[in-house]
Amino acid sequence: MSLLLSRRDLDFLLHEWLEVSALTERPRFADHSRETFDAALDLSEQIATRHFAPHNKKADAEEPRFDGERVHLIPEVKEALAVFAESGLTGATMDYEIGGSQLPAVVANACFAWFQAANVGTSAYPFLTTGNANLLLAHGSREQIDTYVRPMVEGRFFGTMCLSEPGAGSSLADVRTRAEPQPGGGHRLFGSKMWISGGEHELSENIVHLVLARIPGGPPGVKGLSLFVVPKYLVAPDGSLGARNDVVLAGLNHKMGYRGTTNTLLNFGEGAHRPEGAPGAVGHLVGEEHRGLAYMFHMMNEARIGVGLGATALGYTGYLHALDYARNRPQGRPLGAKDPASPQVPILAHADVRRMLLAQKSYVEGALALNLYCGRLVDEQRTAATEEARDRARLLLDVLTPIAKSWPSQWCLEANDLAIQVHGGYGYTREYNVEQFYRDNRLNPIHEGTHGIHGLDLLGRKAVQEGGAGLALLGEQIGASVARAAKAGGEAAGYAEALGGRLARIGEVTARLWGTGDPATALANATAYLEAVGHVVLAWIWLEQLLATGDREGAFYEGKRAACRFFYRHELPRTDAQFALLESLDRTALDVPDEAF
Amino acid sequence: MSLLLSRRDLDFLLHEWLEVSALTERPRFADHSRETFDAALDLSEQIATRHFAPHNKKADAEEPRFDGERVHLIPEVKEALAVFAESGLTGATMDYEIGGSQLPAVVANACFAWFQAANVGTSAYPFLTTGNANLLLAHGSREQIDTYVRPMVEGRFFGTMCLSEPGAGSSLADVRTRAEPQPGGGHRLFGSKMWISGGEHELSENIVHLVLARIPGGPPGVKGLSLFVVPKYLVAPDGSLGARNDVVLAGLNHKMGYRGTTNTLLNFGEGAHRPEGAPGAVGHLVGEEHRGLAYMFHMMNEARIGVGLGATALGYTGYLHALDYARNRPQGRPLGAKDPASPQVPILAHADVRRMLLAQKSYVEGALALNLYCGRLVDEQRTAATEEARDRARLLLDVLTPIAKSWPSQWCLEANDLAIQVHGGYGYTREYNVEQFYRDNRLNPIHEGTHGIHGLDLLGRKAVQEGGAGLALLGEQIGASVARAAKAGGEAAGYAEALGGRLARIGEVTARLWGTGDPATALANATAYLEAVGHVVLAWIWLEQLLATGDREGAFYEGKRAACRFFYRHELPRTDAQFALLESLDRTALDVPDEAF
Repeated sequence: MSLLLSRRDLDFLLHEWLEVSALTERPRFADHSRETFDAALDLSEQIATRHFAPHNKKADAEEPRFDGERVHLIPEVKEALAVFAESGLTGATMDYEIGGSQLPAVVANACFAWFQAANVGTSAYPFLTTGNANLLLAHGSREQIDTYVRPMVEGRFFGTMCLSEPGAGSSLADVRTRAEPQPGGGHRLFGSKMWISGGEHELSENIVHLVLARIPGGPPGVKGLSLFVVPKYLVAPDGSLGARNDVVLAGLNHKMGYRGTTNTLLNFGEGAHRPEGAPGAVGHLVGEEHRGLAYMFHMMNEARIGVGLGATALGYTGYLHALDYARNRPQGRPLGAKDPASPQVPILAHADVRRMLLAQKSYVEGALALNLYCGRLVDEQRTAATEEARDRARLLLDVLTPIAKSWPSQWCLEANDLAIQVHGGYGYTREYNVEQFYRDNRLNPIHEGTHGIHGLDLLGRKAVQEGGAGLALLGEQIGASVARAAKAGGEAAGYAEALGGRLARIGEVTARLWGTGDPATALANATAYLEAVGHVVLAWIWLEQLLATGDREGAFYEGKRAACRFFYRHELPRTDAQFALLESLDRTALDVPDEAF
Repeated sequence: MSLLLSRRDLDFLLHEWLEVSALTERPRFADHSRETFDAALDLSEQIATRHFAPHNKKADAEEPRFDGERVHLIPEVKEALAVFAESGLTGATMDYEIGGSQLPAVVANACFAWFQAANVGTSAYPFLTTGNANLLLAHGSREQIDTYVRPMVEGRFFGTMCLSEPGAGSSLADVRTRAEPQPGGGHRLFGSKMWISGGEHELSENIVHLVLARIPGGPPGVKGLSLFVVPKYLVAPDGSLGARNDVVLAGLNHKMGYRGTTNTLLNFGEGAHRPEGAPGAVGHLVGEEHRGLAYMFHMMNEARIGVGLGATALGYTGYLHALDYARNRPQGRPLGAKDPASPQVPILAHADVRRMLLAQKSYVEGALALNLYCGRLVDEQRTAATEEARDRARLLLDVLTPIAKSWPSQWCLEANDLAIQVHGGYGYTREYNVEQFYRDNRLNPIHEGTHGIHGLDLLGRKAVQEGGAGLALLGEQIGASVARAAKAGGEAAGYAEALGGRLARIGEVTARLWGTGDPATALANATAYLEAVGHVVLAWIWLEQLLATGDREGAFYEGKRAACRFFYRHELPRTDAQFALLESLDRTALDVPDEAF
């Protein structure tokens, strides 16, 4: 059995729950079938297992090294990425016309999860590339698509996203990189970008940077940000590579985990190169001036679900490793077995180990279901028959994105923590795998918007925008599941009641928070709001899974029901204290004098 | 200001709350005074700052290396330990007669915390040595004390504790190392010990291993374990070092953190050496046969509070680092500040950053207070005037030990997680300090009894032993604080009510759990019990601190009150869901079929 993901679970989620085969009735997916979906999943599992997983530990131990001129990576990374490119998965969801496979996003996400579970560091290169290409497909010119997207789909060019700067992380309003218009047209960029994943390497022929920069004279703040394509090497109209652009690696960041992905400080236009004899990094404007952040959000929203999926994949593989260890490690005896000469039992027999495994199962299977559900919404948004249905999908996806990013980042990291704990001292050593998953996963609550930023996004933006339509729609969806579960009776009916009560609390506290007319107080506990709503959403996702098991028998379905039960008994009740805190409009942290910390 | 610990807070806890100067009225501490206590703290801060902190990162990056013959450590470790030995702190709490300083344990713990905050890896060597020496002082022969303890107090010998084996971690009943009685007296040991911290190095002239082993013919299980002194080099009656004993390093474990401390697999009597011409490792029985585990518990209880203190120290220094960063990192603007040209504010201005800092403060200052309170109980147990008072202290310490070990291991690790989060991306890099604290601290829920083992210890043993006298006494103590707080009125009275309610819940669920006559069900949620009781105990400790602030004014006292408020509003309410779970006698994890995971 694979220790990366459970194919049985993926099949359950995709087919028994989300019924993705129905998508093949839509024109975009008409060439597809259960068989082509299965083939994509088989291929992904195979490549992830054979080419990504084997060098995961090595890429961590021998992290990228910068000798002042070049970045050195272990050769296995490039070999794995060549196989990935060959598979065609870079363009999994893209149009046939550009070389893509027109797979539904929900299936493509399931495919990608195999790679993230196998080796999140190596996976980052193609995933950033896909996101970059999708942005250009949506907002780039025909020429930009031909010049940059086609080679990305073929796996010859890789992409990055360059937002942060040393003085501008969460605060994009403070981006200072300048894009100077040139007399003969085009722009030259000057500035520094920080935290750029995949910013430098020799894994691909070229690197396509998407860079937020400021055209002088534009509005201040985020409204003055424009988006540019800045290739590492200039590309001639015939596609051949030209001069080195003035994008220079200033240094690598040395991270706790996720080490296989180079993370860079890049200087633009500092003078190391003079492409075409002039100073500055050559940049090509994407779309219109000053609309850069809106375009970038296209990529960021996709990246946020991708981050959630990566966190989930790390949690999932950690769970399977812990389960495997628990089945095979003999230690101790059952309670009441007094004879120390009797054989030891596998630690799976111990109550607390079972609790830690079931907790992990409820976190990682719940998170995977949520991430796939979001993929399904992406497909709905793109291909539903009516505009109304597409719009509903967009609204729902908008409100779920901060949760799909943050919840797995928090709880699948917690799963990795429990996976270490199941392994005892062995789990703390680098001779085993789980400590790396934990270190890798710790990045996820930070990048693509920190946990706190997503709290502000959910409570300050998503819960109220369009008159609260997104949150209302989410409530409608959850309410429909509650009604079905109540009708189903038995265990599901009990959970319906528990979930319905918490759903009502979301409405109450949202109204209470925004009823004060005091945004500072309302937003002071935005993180608690994010976490409470997140747990309610996951309880909903678990109820949906429970309903999807129907009356089917067998260990797999028993496991689903047990994990759902665990979530309702051990997890959902946590939200009550959070709702009470929100209700109280607590200002404790706001009101401490600065000098009292 | 130090980024290790807050001396102001230590002074508050020691003098304004615990009133440790009163101890100087007792004969054992008669030579001491506030001045000698202050001098010990000053010296500790100074040595920790100058000799321990500077190589903390280097010892992590250049972890111990075994070349097949010798273990190599960076030279700074030995230099720092020489200064520590010179300071006399190894024997801080020991009798003058053996070369100690007869400091109260509560003051010594405060001293040790400086070293753990500065460099937990290097600190482990002397702390293990102190624990080892204290065990021999309590249970060893006069000759063993002269031969091994004196050189340990002088810093010439270091000590270890050797319990675990590859097949016996949490299950000590399965220890297999054999101690063969020799015809001429004494024993020879044969076997392997795993996870031995400080098991091999060249930092000291000799290493004194305390080893649990089985004398053939003894009872099975833990009742057949005897304790032996096994020195790395045999020691002649005149104190000179003799032959190499047959204790051989088989390998180093490579850990996620805590890397400065060598962690070893040791083979005893495998034949690499033949001390005095015979096979086996020479071992000297400590005390009586088959009483080894009871003796070892002497060291383990001390070590458990030491682990809690180490977790606290890591959490504390992480908090101070995060606070320093938050005061100095400009990013973003206050809510409602719409002008992007206005200067950025330090991130301390942002609500969620304040929340994360206040949470850390409430965890680390609460944990430090608990750990020092336990030190105070150690002093009470040793030096109180009446046997009744000494016995009460022992009972209370017994019931608090699993909490003093586990609560900081969980919540000060959480504090380190928040310290990373406050730093954003920078916190995830090894260029900053907090990611190491997090990795180092992750060991603490594992060693000296895992988190789950302490749950079983608290609910299965401590809560019920001696007819539940320990738990009853704890309730009495908490009840007394509640009464004082109710009388004090104001904010404290509100907290008294909140705490009193949860205290009653402890009694109710304990009765409910043990009322079933079904230990498997009772113990299935022992971890939730540990965590709920732990939070109630910390709420008590916070109420005690609040009361100790009296009506004093100023930022320091405001900070204490705010952290207490945070704990009561954000933390204590978490216990309600845990108590409800315990009340429900949940068996979800127990009842899942094995194949359904």
